[in-house]
Amino acid sequence: MKDSDYRHSLSRRTALLGGLGVATAVGAVACGTTEESAEQLPSDSHEFFGQHQSGIVTPVQDRLHFAALTVITESREELQKLLRDWTVAARQLMAGEPVGEERPLNAPPDDTGEAMDLSASHLTLTFGLGRSLFIDADGAARFGLEGQLPPALEDIPKMSGDMLEEARSGGDLCIQACADDPQVAVHAVRNLVRIAAGRAAVAWSQLGFGRTSSTSTSQVTPRNLFGFKDGTANLKVEEEELLEQHVWATSQTSESNPAWMEGGSYCATRRIRMLIEPWDRAPLREQEDIIGRTKREGAPLSGGGEFDAPDFTMKGRNGPIIPVNSHVHLMHPHQNGGVQMLRRGFNYTDGTDGLGHLDAGLFFIAYVCDPRTHFVPVLRTMMKSDALSEYLRHTGSALFAIPPGVKDEKDYLASGLFEGAN
Amino acid sequence: MKDSDYRHSLSRRTALLGGLGVATAVGAVACGTTEESAEQLPSDSHEFFGQHQSGIVTPVQDRLHFAALTVITESREELQKLLRDWTVAARQLMAGEPVGEERPLNAPPDDTGEAMDLSASHLTLTFGLGRSLFIDADGAARFGLEGQLPPALEDIPKMSGDMLEEARSGGDLCIQACADDPQVAVHAVRNLVRIAAGRAAVAWSQLGFGRTSSTSTSQVTPRNLFGFKDGTANLKVEEEELLEQHVWATSQTSESNPAWMEGGSYCATRRIRMLIEPWDRAPLREQEDIIGRTKREGAPLSGGGEFDAPDFTMKGRNGPIIPVNSHVHLMHPHQNGGVQMLRRGFNYTDGTDGLGHLDAGLFFIAYVCDPRTHFVPVLRTMMKSDALSEYLRHTGSALFAIPPGVKDEKDYLASGLFEGAN
Repeated sequence: MKDSDYRHSLSRRTALLGGLGVATAVGAVACGTTEESAEQLPSDSHEFFGQHQSGIVTPVQDRLHFAALTVITESREELQKLLRDWTVAARQLMAGEPVGEERPLNAPPDDTGEAMDLSASHLTLTFGLGRSLFIDADGAARFGLEGQLPPALEDIPKMSGDMLEEARSGGDLCIQACADDPQVAVHAVRNLVRIAAGRAAVAWSQLGFGRTSSTSTSQVTPRNLFGFKDGTANLKVEEEELLEQHVWATSQTSESNPAWMEGGSYCATRRIRMLIEPWDRAPLREQEDIIGRTKREGAPLSGGGEFDAPDFTMKGRNGPIIPVNSHVHLMHPHQNGGVQMLRRGFNYTDGTDGLGHLDAGLFFIAYVCDPRTHFVPVLRTMMKSDALSEYLRHTGSALFAIPPGVKDEKDYLASGLFEGAN
Repeated sequence: MKDSDYRHSLSRRTALLGGLGVATAVGAVACGTTEESAEQLPSDSHEFFGQHQSGIVTPVQDRLHFAALTVITESREELQKLLRDWTVAARQLMAGEPVGEERPLNAPPDDTGEAMDLSASHLTLTFGLGRSLFIDADGAARFGLEGQLPPALEDIPKMSGDMLEEARSGGDLCIQACADDPQVAVHAVRNLVRIAAGRAAVAWSQLGFGRTSSTSTSQVTPRNLFGFKDGTANLKVEEEELLEQHVWATSQTSESNPAWMEGGSYCATRRIRMLIEPWDRAPLREQEDIIGRTKREGAPLSGGGEFDAPDFTMKGRNGPIIPVNSHVHLMHPHQNGGVQMLRRGFNYTDGTDGLGHLDAGLFFIAYVCDPRTHFVPVLRTMMKSDALSEYLRHTGSALFAIPPGVKDEKDYLASGLFEGAN
């Protein structure tokens, strides 16, 4: 009885695995092949092919696994092959299928199996290339790619207050896996890392358990670990014109953007530890003055509701009611030459710091058309002047060029990089 | 428009916060007081009061935050007060309410706020006491509690193959927070730790992203990071008689069990890193021989379905078809004097090991009536003989006495410990 009950709960994913040495009770569905399934994507999956990569404007999923890798091969062909292999696997993973093919019993399975009964879970996979993939720390060329280095892919300069750890920073390649189910995100990164064996190895990785922004007007604004709503004014997928101006890299939006990056973006990450114990001891008024919004509703201190525009001229008891060094004031586009970012950060908790405190905070992720204009100046302002910075420690930093989407089955990730787009 | 849309999505939780300095649009619900809400628990919450603590036989939720704490006060009264304070807060948290009371703007809020818009999410909180709370490492008494030390609360002996890290082991107190939403679990631990300030501090903590066992026949068996179904033969909440025999500590099930522990349990944790890269290179047949079950369906190698009994006498090509050193064979109650455990483990991924590998594995949690009979011998067998151990590294270990449940509003956690139950 128990067994037959269980069989009835077999998901489509399991059924698709087909005779992995064991007969299945789900006859009709099990006959589906990988080819057919590509045409009938599960309802909780996103399309892999497209002008842009998924996982940028896609409504932010609940969970994150982000990994940065070091390329260990010196062969340009092997790097190119890795990106081809990742393309095939990413398409399978996003469709909720096991990666690779069925293998005989005397071979290691292609898919590691821990997502076998789980659905596609809205998985998106976003791949990026670090500056160190093009030229090494000594300025020497790698893979003959130095001529393709996007001018926008400059290292993020050292900031006042930086407490960066090398083991949490940089990377030749990155994979951002977002999904509703963390096991699906972890499974995807693990299998992509496995596919990279002998060609690339994990440099660092970060799990995020709760999104801290919305990228669609259909999503409720989430809260960060300071208990405040985060990302109220974030760019949204519905704002196509703003995305064209601020997120997608083109020859218009990013100076000297190489042709192979047309329709791509740039992804900046910062691992920001939040000093939650001192924050928790701050009075509510101080917390709200630092953020510039109310804690409960997320409304600007100048009044109205969460989505009402802040009035920076309104007077309070001591100067403007929204303090000039508040997060909302300093990060507002009006203070930053009109630039905006698409934020996609996640809350994290990585155990303790050994001193009785939780090691918790925000893994900040932003997509911009050009980090030189849209990220670095805003970061500098924040770290220098923002009242919030007293409660933050930036412990990791990275920047990646995000190539455009894979167009069709013949195309592969960053193909323009190898095929003479320069 | 956006604002009014948002207001309509306010959850009960937010509404209950009531005038935290900001008017709410949800009039009727906002009038509910904390007192009333205790009588009408949200549909996705568990009852706090009871014979046993929650979070043991409760159907396993999806996510875990486990924390071990060191008591820093030397005052017995302060320890007792901490357990009283935790009792009040735990009841609020499990009901999806903010902890504490409303505070004025010039005071720090009692609740840190990051779960303000989230539901109760089936949160359970389970509290435990380590041996080091009763006597310190030198054998000296603490808090005058030495006479109350349960004989079953012996340190887990050193095992062959142990690679334990002190910073991930032991603890005077523990909190196990399980919930469907990880932010709810993290919020609970954070606020309980905050309430403990000056009396106890976090020693270590562990996030788990995916359950690796079921404690109810209504749950599908999940998979561990080796891709195998885990906990098929786990004890279930529906098996009351077996729970009485193997999980609940009484004078019958645990020799010399003190009266204050009647109806409690013992919780053993092991942080088990899984060497997933070598595992992933092992042929499917080898993986299945090590586990003793098929990967896809989780059926014993002797045939049938997942829940069919293994036939350890059936012959294969080289001896029994279920190898004698397989996990299923060695861990089977028949091999262990009939003892069983209630397992409640979770998959974890904690970044990388600095050598290009993911630091991932299983945070093993088991509840037993007496670790001397029900846990230590089984662990010893596993570490010594189990073929699986080649792929495992035990990096953390802890044992806690889990007092019985809080009976009613006048009672508090571990009250019997202080009020002359000896």
